[in-house]
Amino acid sequence: MRSVWGTLSGVVMVLSLVGAAYAQSDAHSSSGANAAVAREKAIDDLVTAYHVLYHEGIVDAFGHITVRDPANPSHYLMAKSVQPPFVTRADIVELDADSNPVSKDAGHVPLERFIHGEIYRLRPDVNSVVHSHAAAVLPFTVAKDAPLRAICHTCGFLGAGAPLFEIREYAGDGSNMLVQNKALGAALAKTLGQNKVVLMRGHGFTAAGGSVKEAVYNAINTVLDAKVEMDALRLGNVTYLSDAEAAAVSKTHNASLDFSWEVWAKRASGELR
Amino acid sequence: MRSVWGTLSGVVMVLSLVGAAYAQSDAHSSSGANAAVAREKAIDDLVTAYHVLYHEGIVDAFGHITVRDPANPSHYLMAKSVQPPFVTRADIVELDADSNPVSKDAGHVPLERFIHGEIYRLRPDVNSVVHSHAAAVLPFTVAKDAPLRAICHTCGFLGAGAPLFEIREYAGDGSNMLVQNKALGAALAKTLGQNKVVLMRGHGFTAAGGSVKEAVYNAINTVLDAKVEMDALRLGNVTYLSDAEAAAVSKTHNASLDFSWEVWAKRASGELR
Amino acid sequence: MRSVWGTLSGVVMVLSLVGAAYAQSDAHSSSGANAAVAREKAIDDLVTAYHVLYHEGIVDAFGHITVRDPANPSHYLMAKSVQPPFVTRADIVELDADSNPVSKDAGHVPLERFIHGEIYRLRPDVNSVVHSHAAAVLPFTVAKDAPLRAICHTCGFLGAGAPLFEIREYAGDGSNMLVQNKALGAALAKTLGQNKVVLMRGHGFTAAGGSVKEAVYNAINTVLDAKVEMDALRLGNVTYLSDAEAAAVSKTHNASLDFSWEVWAKRASGELR
Amino acid sequence: MRSVWGTLSGVVMVLSLVGAAYAQSDAHSSSGANAAVAREKAIDDLVTAYHVLYHEGIVDAFGHITVRDPANPSHYLMAKSVQPPFVTRADIVELDADSNPVSKDAGHVPLERFIHGEIYRLRPDVNSVVHSHAAAVLPFTVAKDAPLRAICHTCGFLGAGAPLFEIREYAGDGSNMLVQNKALGAALAKTLGQNKVVLMRGHGFTAAGGSVKEAVYNAINTVLDAKVEMDALRLGNVTYLSDAEAAAVSKTHNASLDFSWEVWAKRASGELR
Repeated sequence: MRSVWGTLSGVVMVLSLVGAAYAQSDAHSSSGANAAVAREKAIDDLVTAYHVLYHEGIVDAFGHITVRDPANPSHYLMAKSVQPPFVTRADIVELDADSNPVSKDAGHVPLERFIHGEIYRLRPDVNSVVHSHAAAVLPFTVAKDAPLRAICHTCGFLGAGAPLFEIREYAGDGSNMLVQNKALGAALAKTLGQNKVVLMRGHGFTAAGGSVKEAVYNAINTVLDAKVEMDALRLGNVTYLSDAEAAAVSKTHNASLDFSWEVWAKRASGELR
Repeated sequence: MRSVWGTLSGVVMVLSLVGAAYAQSDAHSSSGANAAVAREKAIDDLVTAYHVLYHEGIVDAFGHITVRDPANPSHYLMAKSVQPPFVTRADIVELDADSNPVSKDAGHVPLERFIHGEIYRLRPDVNSVVHSHAAAVLPFTVAKDAPLRAICHTCGFLGAGAPLFEIREYAGDGSNMLVQNKALGAALAKTLGQNKVVLMRGHGFTAAGGSVKEAVYNAINTVLDAKVEMDALRLGNVTYLSDAEAAAVSKTHNASLDFSWEVWAKRASGELR
Repeated sequence: MRSVWGTLSGVVMVLSLVGAAYAQSDAHSSSGANAAVAREKAIDDLVTAYHVLYHEGIVDAFGHITVRDPANPSHYLMAKSVQPPFVTRADIVELDADSNPVSKDAGHVPLERFIHGEIYRLRPDVNSVVHSHAAAVLPFTVAKDAPLRAICHTCGFLGAGAPLFEIREYAGDGSNMLVQNKALGAALAKTLGQNKVVLMRGHGFTAAGGSVKEAVYNAINTVLDAKVEMDALRLGNVTYLSDAEAAAVSKTHNASLDFSWEVWAKRASGELR
Repeated sequence: MRSVWGTLSGVVMVLSLVGAAYAQSDAHSSSGANAAVAREKAIDDLVTAYHVLYHEGIVDAFGHITVRDPANPSHYLMAKSVQPPFVTRADIVELDADSNPVSKDAGHVPLERFIHGEIYRLRPDVNSVVHSHAAAVLPFTVAKDAPLRAICHTCGFLGAGAPLFEIREYAGDGSNMLVQNKALGAALAKTLGQNKVVLMRGHGFTAAGGSVKEAVYNAINTVLDAKVEMDALRLGNVTYLSDAEAAAVSKTHNASLDFSWEVWAKRASGELR
């Protein structure tokens, strides 16, 4: 993949689109220079996250990740309509609280950006959101009687389970199943509630986190949990994590996100096989 | 794979076999220069499609894809008997409405070309056909009580399901299971009916589309649907897409075929890991 | 893999061990110069086959393939105790009808060579034998009520099924499960009977063929059949190939072995991804 | 991976941390110069083992392997807190019988080192321990009625099964599930008993061996056994290895550990695909 984006990685660039957006929203920013630095770092992580999610099989041509704008917390940053493996810093655009691009030159932005915008609105603790169609999770989105629950110690963030969003209840029985407007985004966010992951029937899932690295961790481990639970259920009765265990392991893992991130990032860049 | 065909890719070549065939069929062509341009483009896509289908695990040494000839819509274009990863523009030959090679110098052509020819005859809306033996779909071709149905939002093209072609009904109980003549091709096309995919018992499946990119999309996502449904059925009762949902998501996805295609093509060429 | 053996591939070498063995057995040879040419070709195919079987996941550090010696049909050729990916022409040794190395300098030879020797003794139609521990087949070797049968059209060679060799019946209940002497080899060969594949309980399987390419084809497609049948049985009742279909598709596929072989060989050499 | 550690591999280095530790513990060493040579060899194997376990999918960012210190058998050697693919000789530190780093400059050491220390204390026959979270084994750690047992001839070390460590019995129902102190390590070691593998509920497993190569072999084949048993149980009643078979195949395989090791090591270094 390095050949595609390698020449840009690690280079601090002046991004015209995001830069312009930032200038406009500067007045709303509470932290000035620090926020600008945090913003640059968030964009770095976001670009790497697109590559990581692609390389780990969480997204393919479709799927996306966003980060709450450190310089303007009611806004968020997202790649415009580019496939995840091709995303560069130049593709990152700023969206406002209603998921409208701040810049008129932003180009095409993903149809389902409302997933992100509405979760940021309802959940001030969430700073990053991943949306994925990973095949391993899909069976749990269509099964009527098999909830996805935390089954292993890297998946405590799932707690007592992930709620299921049935779009038919909000868009009727003939929709294109996409969360492509504010009302559907708000319904999804409400279904998510105080959880970290929401399943979307026949479509995929959305994972939230306190940072880009945590959202990526939660997305990757949601797929792992689904694979393990799928096989475990075949063997008969199983023991899930207790609520207290789920909380305790989450705390431990959140303290070591950089450890996994370094491996994922180096695999995505090709530095590590 | 690049080492095998890389030196030819992107080069506009004068292809003697196809060129000769085109000259012969020119009188039947309705659109002259435009059709010739469309034909060159169709051949480009077709060669890339062979590589994509190999790289995505849809075909291996066997399996094929064809495209209706833009310059002569009763004819179609196909690689002669070459394994998919090795196909170049020089391997593309023209077949007539009865699946006979137009050029006497075409060399060996696939035994099962009648699958393609007879679908083009019956289905004017179909402009490209993929035939695959992908292992993930085979269980659904031999299971007596588990139909393959649209279970996720990238698989709306499956609609209410894919009919099953039981070759014993047409070739008896001791055939070599290949669709190797017009009568069997016609029976298969009739079983396909107005659907996009037909399952072939113990053999594989055939997917149709309005373009090369759509046929490739449908083939790749048929395999995805089979994998997801296989796992979902283990979990108990499942919710499939409604007919209206299937139609709506198909429309959405057909509008974004280039998005997936670019990722597949770059993976096949080695430009993207 | 190329770095390991690439410098040797395609080079016609004078092999001291095999050469010496060949000189000794020359008197028994019926066809002189032609047999010598056939022998060179068989050794070429055999070395490629070790690499193909490794690359396709049929063997790993353990597992082997042999070929009946064209210059002395009661003998056979095999790599000495070297892991499959590292085999070169220099590792090929000749074994006599009792599976003893013809040359005293042959070095270590595989413990389970008797699998091969005893099948050649009983089955004059067999010219190549593969022994594999592939994980996908193992479940069918330990399941008491689920026979492996031909379920798809590339697996006709399985016919009505593969018999199961239970070594406890011959070596008692505390053996090391290896076919490491003539008596066990003969028992295995008798269990194989007139079939192409024999399952070995908790151990693996052995596939026979009329040529190196056919034996490799049968081994690779035994693994495919096991994967497909495993999933198909989950879906309920299934339709297997009829005996007549199995025979007919086998005939067709044996006519096109080179087609698959070229893809496998180029994947093993790294020429094709 | 070569680019990450390649420049260090095979180079005999003076390691300041381990060297200092060795000087301190020299008085306890029974074998002087020989032990020093054995120690260098053990460290070589240990570093390779980290890379092998990563490459074979047994560990990822987390998981570890240790070796009993040949120069001081009550101590053991382990990589400090570095992800397995990045481990070099410079990361290896010495831990005492209570799992405290011998050097004050050792840096961070893994939280779960007590798994290793307490097994070395209870089991003088064990000289190497692997701790893994491999997904294929997890279902057997949470299933209440499906014990993991030796099902194939490369897995005799599993004997009649692997006991299950339920951490709730020792740390209560709200722990972070980590074996992060001596008491939990001792409880795990006691559960392991005289077996080679212990399952850890919702967490992973730990495998022991008489050498680094044997522990790696046991870990890799525990994953294989889990995959095979998972599929076999779907097919109905199965035949496991008898106790006598398990013992006999273990003896055979322990005599050929170098054979598998060479393949794994070359795959990890990139010398072999």
